[in-house]
Amino acid sequence: MFNFDFYNPTKLMFGQGRIADIAGEIPPGAKVLITYGGGSIKSNGVYDQVMAALKGYELIEFSGIEPNPVYETLMQAVDLVKERGIDFLLAVGGGSVIDGTKFIAAAAVHPGDPWEIVLSRGTAARGALPLGAVLTLPATGSESNYRAVVTRQAMNAKISFYSDFFFPRFAVLDPVTTYSLPPVQISNGVVDAYMHVLEQYLTYPVNARVQERISEGLLLTLIEEGPRALADPTNYEVRSNIMLCATLALNGLISSGVPTDWSTHMVGHELTALYDIDHAATLAVLLPGMLQVTREEKRLRLLQYAHRIWGLTEGDEDERITAAIEKTREFFELMQMKTCLQDLGLTADNIPEIIASLESHDMVRLGENKNVTPEKVRQALELCL
Amino acid sequence: MFNFDFYNPTKLMFGQGRIADIAGEIPPGAKVLITYGGGSIKSNGVYDQVMAALKGYELIEFSGIEPNPVYETLMQAVDLVKERGIDFLLAVGGGSVIDGTKFIAAAAVHPGDPWEIVLSRGTAARGALPLGAVLTLPATGSESNYRAVVTRQAMNAKISFYSDFFFPRFAVLDPVTTYSLPPVQISNGVVDAYMHVLEQYLTYPVNARVQERISEGLLLTLIEEGPRALADPTNYEVRSNIMLCATLALNGLISSGVPTDWSTHMVGHELTALYDIDHAATLAVLLPGMLQVTREEKRLRLLQYAHRIWGLTEGDEDERITAAIEKTREFFELMQMKTCLQDLGLTADNIPEIIASLESHDMVRLGENKNVTPEKVRQALELCL
Repeated sequence: MFNFDFYNPTKLMFGQGRIADIAGEIPPGAKVLITYGGGSIKSNGVYDQVMAALKGYELIEFSGIEPNPVYETLMQAVDLVKERGIDFLLAVGGGSVIDGTKFIAAAAVHPGDPWEIVLSRGTAARGALPLGAVLTLPATGSESNYRAVVTRQAMNAKISFYSDFFFPRFAVLDPVTTYSLPPVQISNGVVDAYMHVLEQYLTYPVNARVQERISEGLLLTLIEEGPRALADPTNYEVRSNIMLCATLALNGLISSGVPTDWSTHMVGHELTALYDIDHAATLAVLLPGMLQVTREEKRLRLLQYAHRIWGLTEGDEDERITAAIEKTREFFELMQMKTCLQDLGLTADNIPEIIASLESHDMVRLGENKNVTPEKVRQALELCL
Repeated sequence: MFNFDFYNPTKLMFGQGRIADIAGEIPPGAKVLITYGGGSIKSNGVYDQVMAALKGYELIEFSGIEPNPVYETLMQAVDLVKERGIDFLLAVGGGSVIDGTKFIAAAAVHPGDPWEIVLSRGTAARGALPLGAVLTLPATGSESNYRAVVTRQAMNAKISFYSDFFFPRFAVLDPVTTYSLPPVQISNGVVDAYMHVLEQYLTYPVNARVQERISEGLLLTLIEEGPRALADPTNYEVRSNIMLCATLALNGLISSGVPTDWSTHMVGHELTALYDIDHAATLAVLLPGMLQVTREEKRLRLLQYAHRIWGLTEGDEDERITAAIEKTREFFELMQMKTCLQDLGLTADNIPEIIASLESHDMVRLGENKNVTPEKVRQALELCL
């Protein structure tokens, strides 16, 4: 296994009714900015629970953070933070709201142009206001990690960046808050979490047995519980398992000491930025093709995946690998995802602009071996049609 | 799954050569007390690496922290900390040194009688000096948790206590530092870690699938790598996997949201306090008997353990449970542990004083269902003869 640092100071507060406990985590007298997206938290009771929990604090609200949060919107919140002298940010929502709030927290104390924080992939961040999260959509893991993704429309750019300053102080994970999610968001969330695990697992072995087993445990749980989450939306245990999987899928643990890929995510970000396609939808479509063009270098791990996750023991190695990729596609379909580009309204004609966009963002050597070139991505996209 | 909080701010710094990086984690100008046990860190090069890394700091040393650290010894270090105005504690060693250093850190800033911290099981702690750890013996998980165990000889008491103040700021896990450990310490460490997992896993199911899978991953890894660690002491990958297992076995993750047992540990602490037997040696002897007297209430989880860990599918349920307990004993024997009380020099004549000691420490309702009474422990001890 490689040398690594693992550091994650976010306090997880898990379970039904835990929103009531957030006041104990925010300094008394703090002026709190509550950030959220659309109005769903008002109709599902989460907004009311937050308000009840924070009685006595001075509260200011900023709503309208969109899926794939947009720089221009977030900068309005930065102005509000400065104008009102906010001390603490509370993000209430899914990964987009939390990602956006991380940017707001860092931008509000940034001495220069805040876009530097994004462009530098986070290294330019000099600090951040403290933030907490009330998660309502299990998917990205942003509630307990140091990553964020922000989109700048004017540049057709969707960029990930990270900094230790971005860790939420706490994250409330109440599975009940997910009961009212539309099925498409559960599908997206489960597939996003699954893909986070795969991009940290389907690389090459470095004899990191614990990380491998934890990754496999997350994959198996998502396979078992994902379809149940769609079929039985108010099953507390199922939603609990999904929520915890999504958090652990990207809290830094399973990537510790192992190579990671992220090529499918990077290509997916281009599809979202160009065509406004849901993040997880891009991943479900891209993965099978991306695995086909990298299957030789991922051979050993794909065989382990075929065996431990899908129980495949019949056929020769190539047949088992092919079957594992096919099983993965079938799982995505069971989760009601589209699995080819045409179903998303894209054709071979779109491939050149996707490749051009990747190149313009300097995404030319992707994957754990840095050999997933634009040409390889083009081959993968053709297989995804 | 139950509601839970999970919080663990310790930064793990894993891998060969990482001791060199500790200076970056200790405030410049800090007056550092380096705590350690016997002289092994001087012969295996760890002491020299620490000294080289901390060039420029004012360093004071306190050696002689014994296995199962003793209150009376630790209080000498507390005096030294106060006398010299120490700002930071660096524990270099195994769980005993780190546990002892947690107590020193809390006692040094405690306004009243420091024994209150232990007696209150940690709730009386009002703060602690910052501490870091350089781990040289993978076993207890103390390097990244909030627990400590201290022995007070005058009272024949070995008591666990815990507080959020006790988390080390950082923990260096360099597998190379374990190469020179005597085999008995590797055996003890692997069995201790295995037992930590079992006491958080072998209870009753609450549909916490992720925690179960992570626990199973740790058990499987210890079973695979434990014997190799004895056979091939300088195998870096094997030692890496063991070291990470021991840390994750007791960092709070796998106990999140699930019932825990700890009865075997509590009885084991009495054996250590009364007869000065190694902690892990007590666990290896006690477990099979303790499982025999609790097998009905643990039935479902024992069946899962039999299947997922030992691959047992033949025979009826009772036969599979019996076989799983037997497989566990065989694993301990493969790890060169004794597995009956007589091999530790104890007989049926000792049972009454063990029970009396348990009762005197108010350990009368142990286990996940609080129904492991002294009478049940007596039955278990008879099975362990």
